[in-house]
Amino acid sequence: MKNRVKMTIAYDGTDFSGWQRQPNYLTVQEVVEDALEKVCGEFVEIFASGRTDKGVHAIGQVVHFDHNSTIPDEKFAIVLNQILRDDVTIVSSSSVPADFNARYTAKIKTYRYYMYKSEFINPTKERYAVRVSDKIDINKMKNACKDVLGRHDFYGLSKRGSSATTSVREVFSADIFEEGDSIYFEISASGFLYNMVRIIVGTLIDIGMGKMAENSLKLAIELRDRGKAGRTCPPNGLFLQKVGYIVEKQLT
Amino acid sequence: MKNRVKMTIAYDGTDFSGWQRQPNYLTVQEVVEDALEKVCGEFVEIFASGRTDKGVHAIGQVVHFDHNSTIPDEKFAIVLNQILRDDVTIVSSSSVPADFNARYTAKIKTYRYYMYKSEFINPTKERYAVRVSDKIDINKMKNACKDVLGRHDFYGLSKRGSSATTSVREVFSADIFEEGDSIYFEISASGFLYNMVRIIVGTLIDIGMGKMAENSLKLAIELRDRGKAGRTCPPNGLFLQKVGYIVEKQLT
Repeated sequence: MKNRVKMTIAYDGTDFSGWQRQPNYLTVQEVVEDALEKVCGEFVEIFASGRTDKGVHAIGQVVHFDHNSTIPDEKFAIVLNQILRDDVTIVSSSSVPADFNARYTAKIKTYRYYMYKSEFINPTKERYAVRVSDKIDINKMKNACKDVLGRHDFYGLSKRGSSATTSVREVFSADIFEEGDSIYFEISASGFLYNMVRIIVGTLIDIGMGKMAENSLKLAIELRDRGKAGRTCPPNGLFLQKVGYIVEKQLT
Repeated sequence: MKNRVKMTIAYDGTDFSGWQRQPNYLTVQEVVEDALEKVCGEFVEIFASGRTDKGVHAIGQVVHFDHNSTIPDEKFAIVLNQILRDDVTIVSSSSVPADFNARYTAKIKTYRYYMYKSEFINPTKERYAVRVSDKIDINKMKNACKDVLGRHDFYGLSKRGSSATTSVREVFSADIFEEGDSIYFEISASGFLYNMVRIIVGTLIDIGMGKMAENSLKLAIELRDRGKAGRTCPPNGLFLQKVGYIVEKQLT
């Protein structure tokens, strides 16, 4: 019987066409599967908690895979990191029960979106954050965050083209945090629709700048109308922070 | 008579062969001078507070130049940022007296060197920081910082090849700061020798890891012996933070 392994993966998404393997484009899945094939001696398919889009980063993407190799389950991080590119790192690896599934048993996902306040581009912040005006009203943004809390149909805050069967999701927490000139939006939910975080942040920024009504998120949700929300923010500010699972009645 | 302008410049040094113009290599000076030539209609030479090495970043590099154009001195930031690459930004521009000289009237320079504690590479931190073991002893590093304070001959903490006539410099402050898993070393001095900050940080890391004697910096200074100090840290963790001038009896 094969061993099932859970791995947590961090990557800089800048140079990748997203997570999911596709012909003619470099993806994170391909890079990790290629490394895994080298150390296992055979192709091993990996299954992620979900795909991340082109240019999106991850601190805590989670995958599972089954293997026949003699490599101890908890050693995959060390073994793979020796051959992986510097923009992809295995943060940890461990044995999990055969019913663990990185996608289907995920209970909570947390994303962060980073912004920085500046009159001009800051060249050493641009790669991982989006610039906003220093005139932005953080309190307006914090208040608007409350409109996405709870169980809602988020159809109006997503891009069409999602393969999801339902657009209902539950948001457990959503707030804005400030550290000097840096700002980040953190959101935890049962799951996310296509472009959902980037549309929420685009709307929050327009609300903070006084360009959109403070109840725009609420309207887009209630009316299921993408047109009531703001623009889609670029991918470089977005980080998949953490995916949580309940394993043996304990959240990990 | 030409107007003299002071500009503060930020850049991501990753894709540049340092500050100073040289044939066949892309440098920050060339990029800024080319932009200035476009907006002024003639070549305008810029003079920096000092060069930064290949791969070193800057938040607050300072330059001066003289121009004949009709562009108001304080508008150069806005005008140049419209045509500059995203990895170089003019933070501010202003008129200065004709005796202001970015290099020769600089009184204090501040550098930061960023590190992060992690077992493995963190792909989204690697570009701007150097990884250290989470077993590093910050208190040992903080204590060793005291050995570089004051006026010393720093010959033993520099790489040969500097054009400086003397290797005596005065260090006004030097300390280690921690924020979660991030650590940075900040040093302010009258000036710096070639590779001086990177050699000090390399030595501090070895002291923090218990691999070098805690008085290694003191020995390297007193014996003028580079061999007593540690390795030279890579450039990607280094930021030129600020250059200070005394203008009309006020430090700016």
